[in-house]
Amino acid sequence: MMRMLDLIAAKREGRAHCAQELSFIADAAAKGSVPDYQLSAWLMAVCLRGMGEQETAELTRAMARSGARLDLEKIPRPKADKHSTGGVGDGISLALAPLAAACGLCVPMMSGRGLGHTGGTLDKLESIPGFTVRLSPEAVIGQCESAGVCLFGQSEALAPADRKLYALRDATSTVESLPLIVASILSKKLCEGLDALVIDVKSGSGAIFRTAKEAEALGRALVKTAGLLGLKSAALVTAMEQPLGRYVGNALEVRQAVEVLRGEKTAPDYLECLLALGGWMLHLAGLARTPEDGARRIQDAIDSGEGFKRLKLIAQRQGGDPAALDNLDRLPKAAASRVVAAPRAGFVADLDARDIGRTAVLLGAGRDFAEQTLDYGAGLGLQKKIGDRVAAGETLAVLYSSDDAKLRAAEAQFLSAVKIGPRRPRAVSVVRKIIRGHKAPKR
Amino acid sequence: MMRMLDLIAAKREGRAHCAQELSFIADAAAKGSVPDYQLSAWLMAVCLRGMGEQETAELTRAMARSGARLDLEKIPRPKADKHSTGGVGDGISLALAPLAAACGLCVPMMSGRGLGHTGGTLDKLESIPGFTVRLSPEAVIGQCESAGVCLFGQSEALAPADRKLYALRDATSTVESLPLIVASILSKKLCEGLDALVIDVKSGSGAIFRTAKEAEALGRALVKTAGLLGLKSAALVTAMEQPLGRYVGNALEVRQAVEVLRGEKTAPDYLECLLALGGWMLHLAGLARTPEDGARRIQDAIDSGEGFKRLKLIAQRQGGDPAALDNLDRLPKAAASRVVAAPRAGFVADLDARDIGRTAVLLGAGRDFAEQTLDYGAGLGLQKKIGDRVAAGETLAVLYSSDDAKLRAAEAQFLSAVKIGPRRPRAVSVVRKIIRGHKAPKR
Repeated sequence: MMRMLDLIAAKREGRAHCAQELSFIADAAAKGSVPDYQLSAWLMAVCLRGMGEQETAELTRAMARSGARLDLEKIPRPKADKHSTGGVGDGISLALAPLAAACGLCVPMMSGRGLGHTGGTLDKLESIPGFTVRLSPEAVIGQCESAGVCLFGQSEALAPADRKLYALRDATSTVESLPLIVASILSKKLCEGLDALVIDVKSGSGAIFRTAKEAEALGRALVKTAGLLGLKSAALVTAMEQPLGRYVGNALEVRQAVEVLRGEKTAPDYLECLLALGGWMLHLAGLARTPEDGARRIQDAIDSGEGFKRLKLIAQRQGGDPAALDNLDRLPKAAASRVVAAPRAGFVADLDARDIGRTAVLLGAGRDFAEQTLDYGAGLGLQKKIGDRVAAGETLAVLYSSDDAKLRAAEAQFLSAVKIGPRRPRAVSVVRKIIRGHKAPKR
Repeated sequence: MMRMLDLIAAKREGRAHCAQELSFIADAAAKGSVPDYQLSAWLMAVCLRGMGEQETAELTRAMARSGARLDLEKIPRPKADKHSTGGVGDGISLALAPLAAACGLCVPMMSGRGLGHTGGTLDKLESIPGFTVRLSPEAVIGQCESAGVCLFGQSEALAPADRKLYALRDATSTVESLPLIVASILSKKLCEGLDALVIDVKSGSGAIFRTAKEAEALGRALVKTAGLLGLKSAALVTAMEQPLGRYVGNALEVRQAVEVLRGEKTAPDYLECLLALGGWMLHLAGLARTPEDGARRIQDAIDSGEGFKRLKLIAQRQGGDPAALDNLDRLPKAAASRVVAAPRAGFVADLDARDIGRTAVLLGAGRDFAEQTLDYGAGLGLQKKIGDRVAAGETLAVLYSSDDAKLRAAEAQFLSAVKIGPRRPRAVSVVRKIIRGHKAPKR
């Protein structure tokens, strides 16, 4: 009989677990048949001893198999998804999911909530009046069939081992472990029955991994593990030194997505990231010969209005008010706002993403702890981004909050995140590196 | 405010804790104010990242301060104790405590129960009809005043942090960590308000640490940490390749102690160990100029019968039947026995202590799990030890059990632990190494 005590000892001594042992652990986590104190001792041993590539893949598989699985076999279209490691202003999913679906993919996109300085797709969606993200696996399948896309939260049914282990990691300082991060991300995606997965690994002050080196290592581990599990993937390391796009906040990032889907050219960095991720999704899933061809198809779906139409369809199917997307004034709005002026003339040299994310949390757009309620209209509108020229006194940003008293403190925090220099910094692209799997896509 | 989450992260990253942080952890363990899953993640981080010397001392102090303390200030005699890391047939405490008290020491000896292949002093004492080891701190103090010695179990009151952490370590494969072992041993001793401590670190197949190198490392760490805490100590690394003495079992080891206290010369290895440990106790506590002088005083207390008298006094004061010590037939006896004969002639070359310990457990003398009840009369009497010459068919040992059915399996297990060779092995001493603190004793 397998005993958790022996498995902890084995990992403590740096030995690798076999698939059977990892199934035992994942099932025990899902069922609660092993006490939390044993799971957390094991998690710490994994953090400090690590896991091999095959072992990480087996853990991922075991976690994916710990619960139900979306059965999308009936749907003839290729299934693809995008995952982001999380950043500030990263509301790409809101535009990418409908665009990818409009281009012919089936997109069963399981998303998360924001915690700390980064936002969560589910919170942004819920800022659309009436929108629900709590769907049963059956409802998700139905919506994927009828609309080609579904944006939903992790249910009790899918990858329950991940829910359990993630909560414990959060409470025991065992979050920052490459194999555990990889298994957590990919186990959820594996439940979706995907043909292809594109991973947006953020790099910079606003990302989990601040250095390009760490972000690349995570990207490589994700692509390697996905490959071992038979899932086609690519990882794009993208910039998170400053927030992505023009807005940070929940309803504000819905606005951002709608503006982009309407073809407004207000956020070139957001658009670059969107086209790159969408292009790779279509390419990996076999709907585009090259990622560049795929990006052109995404742009076409913007230009034709098909993407925007699909977003409204999603909202409608998931209980949301599509009219709020046509008339953005119907989205939640903060009661108060404050204009932040540039203290001096020059070029914006830095807009520290982490600090600006913290500013958004302070304004009410994010959470410091899991149960906190959100101010959907709160956040920031960035009028200037890195590289832009500003005059002294010119508007840098507008802060929004329903709590007037928070605006002054937020202004100070925002200004501490801004650097204005005498020379225009060198322009840099958003997509820094592309890591692809070894096997070429078959379709 | 201090958060356990941050302390776990710090240890995970290999940083050292300060005294305040270790107090927070020890108090949290004692009070239950931090969840077990956080404590166990921290324990695993300590196992894999280690602790510095000062840090280990501070953890020990914090654990000792997590509860009550024996106040023996009123007693004018020097206080000394002995701790053994545990072995098979190691019932030395039963003879040493009364002898040391008879020589003028105050001996507040907190002991433990047996688990696995090693026995526990408390179980051996409880095999004396009526003997109780569950005493309140007040009762312990009273007994130390009136009899100069008390043999008792760890109560809820003393070092509660150790009780909690020890139970968690046992359940999370985090036992084998030098700083955690040192802190566990010394925190309990620190509560006793000692002037001197002698530590018997067993080395060999029947010990926690099988190699002399590991045993020495533990001895050094114990003496170093005790020194940092202002406690005079010495560690003796002693042999545990074969069981100590002639008997393994609870009532059988009481018999062993009585035989030695009566001056019977049946167990030279037991006597060597006893005199060395007692000699060091007296020396460190200032009652003997050298350890050798101390050993002579211990031998004198055997020869004069004072030691045996004191053991009977202890039994009487703690509810036990002193007559059972005068007439050993009144001790619990196993219903059945079996003689094991030597399969061939030669010299005994090995009597594997671990395997013989397991044999004793099989016979009913020990526990595989904490709640198991004991067969006090069960165990082994060893007629031959390593180096003895045997004829084919001569008695090697007698096995005792109240469960007749166990004797045959136990015989096979016992024989697998025995090696008989053609040549007499080189005689080796029991005391292998003496590790003493840097400061010379003051008295």
